[in-house]
Amino acid sequence: MKETEFNRRLREIQTKRRSRLCVGLDPDLSRIPEHLRKQHSVVDAIVSFNRTVIEATVDHVCAFKLNLAFFEVLGAGSFDCLTRTLEGIPPDVIVIADGKRGDIGNSAQFYASAAFESLRFDACTVSPYMGRDSVVPFLEFAGRCAFILVRTSNPGSIDFQTLDSNGIPLYSHVAQTALSWHTNKPGDIGFVIGATDPSAIRAVRKFAPNVPLLIPGIGSQGGDLENVLAAAGSGPILINSSRSILYASTGRDFAEAARKEADALRLRLGDS
Amino acid sequence: MKETEFNRRLREIQTKRRSRLCVGLDPDLSRIPEHLRKQHSVVDAIVSFNRTVIEATVDHVCAFKLNLAFFEVLGAGSFDCLTRTLEGIPPDVIVIADGKRGDIGNSAQFYASAAFESLRFDACTVSPYMGRDSVVPFLEFAGRCAFILVRTSNPGSIDFQTLDSNGIPLYSHVAQTALSWHTNKPGDIGFVIGATDPSAIRAVRKFAPNVPLLIPGIGSQGGDLENVLAAAGSGPILINSSRSILYASTGRDFAEAARKEADALRLRLGDS
Repeated sequence: MKETEFNRRLREIQTKRRSRLCVGLDPDLSRIPEHLRKQHSVVDAIVSFNRTVIEATVDHVCAFKLNLAFFEVLGAGSFDCLTRTLEGIPPDVIVIADGKRGDIGNSAQFYASAAFESLRFDACTVSPYMGRDSVVPFLEFAGRCAFILVRTSNPGSIDFQTLDSNGIPLYSHVAQTALSWHTNKPGDIGFVIGATDPSAIRAVRKFAPNVPLLIPGIGSQGGDLENVLAAAGSGPILINSSRSILYASTGRDFAEAARKEADALRLRLGDS
Repeated sequence: MKETEFNRRLREIQTKRRSRLCVGLDPDLSRIPEHLRKQHSVVDAIVSFNRTVIEATVDHVCAFKLNLAFFEVLGAGSFDCLTRTLEGIPPDVIVIADGKRGDIGNSAQFYASAAFESLRFDACTVSPYMGRDSVVPFLEFAGRCAFILVRTSNPGSIDFQTLDSNGIPLYSHVAQTALSWHTNKPGDIGFVIGATDPSAIRAVRKFAPNVPLLIPGIGSQGGDLENVLAAAGSGPILINSSRSILYASTGRDFAEAARKEADALRLRLGDS
């Protein structure tokens, strides 16, 4: 199978940085170092925090994932904070808009346009509940990737995602169905599967060996890294870590602490 | 059962306006009247369009639903456009943030805070795929309501929502489970069920007689109004119409055309 454009870019940056680590930027004002909060306005404090973390960790990552909730809550300053944060990320590093959007037709087009055109994101997370026409508009952008929520790492993920539907868990049905939407589209598709369920990663890899997997839930959420890596096999993965890197220290040494934490995790992930 | 605060507010405005109509504000720049696009910047044109439609239709509605995708695509002007649009809506009219957000913990809290605190929305639409901990943060705000996506009106809704899970369709499982999350929470819960499937409305009404239903899919999407009203019974409903009102005319008479369309639909919906 021909390598897709997104997969090629991902492979190149992963090779260059020797890293499959994605740092999740979830900048929570109540947790960022006090000296930043005292010196700046809220937006400036968060931009300063984000850009310092980016600069400290960028040599150890293949991607940054920006959780849009943490920006949206800033209200009027949200877009400015997003653009100034993105300006700190070199163009070869993948940037993911973690917004878990999911709506139909025009609405999905506009969400995709907001992420891929108004902003320079390479990928988005997308919720599958509304089905095909809520996802396909994200697949119309060449070289970009829509990461579909398949099996998430939170406790509530067992409420519906693991329900038996026609003999397989709903999450497996979602992943198989989403693959069929991808045919003849210029954009790429990926899956979000939490580190909390290596068996789900293994099950999905059987029918999706080359689909990039965005894997949260390492660290704070307790996923077991070695099992996850074994389950993911040789296909492309991005292991996301947010809080354990961002808040490795809440003192003046937060950048150095984040860098060390990122480098240590990068090494544990191995090359491929 | 004691009437909840959101249901009471909804009943009061519905009685006062004799209307169960919700007008959906999906302001698509390519479809708003040319004279507005020529006179103004993009944001000003959309604010002008929204506020003119609001003023023309407000006497005939119980609610306005703002589709956040159509604002998010405006980038830097998004928040300004939202606040100026909301300023045009009287405080007794319900305002719904249609963002279909769904994320966990902190993220969900921040999405809820963005809608209920940074902005003055009374309700949000929320996607259920990630389960309990993605919805509960929206239920922590007294008098506000989280409308959970249950059975949507788009073609892709049959991809997963109607799958059999343990003998009932997934959407029914979602609605029943979401009801249990609501216990002892200060906020209220509602369901989004499309007019395209009156049998789903009837099925959900059996175990949720007093839950407010937000019903899209009348008009452009082809739902049959009389069947929908019969299925919904005497519980609270909001019938949403967006495009057939907003774009009733694309000429200089768009406000008058929207008003006529809204009034005609209001009358067809009846009082209760």
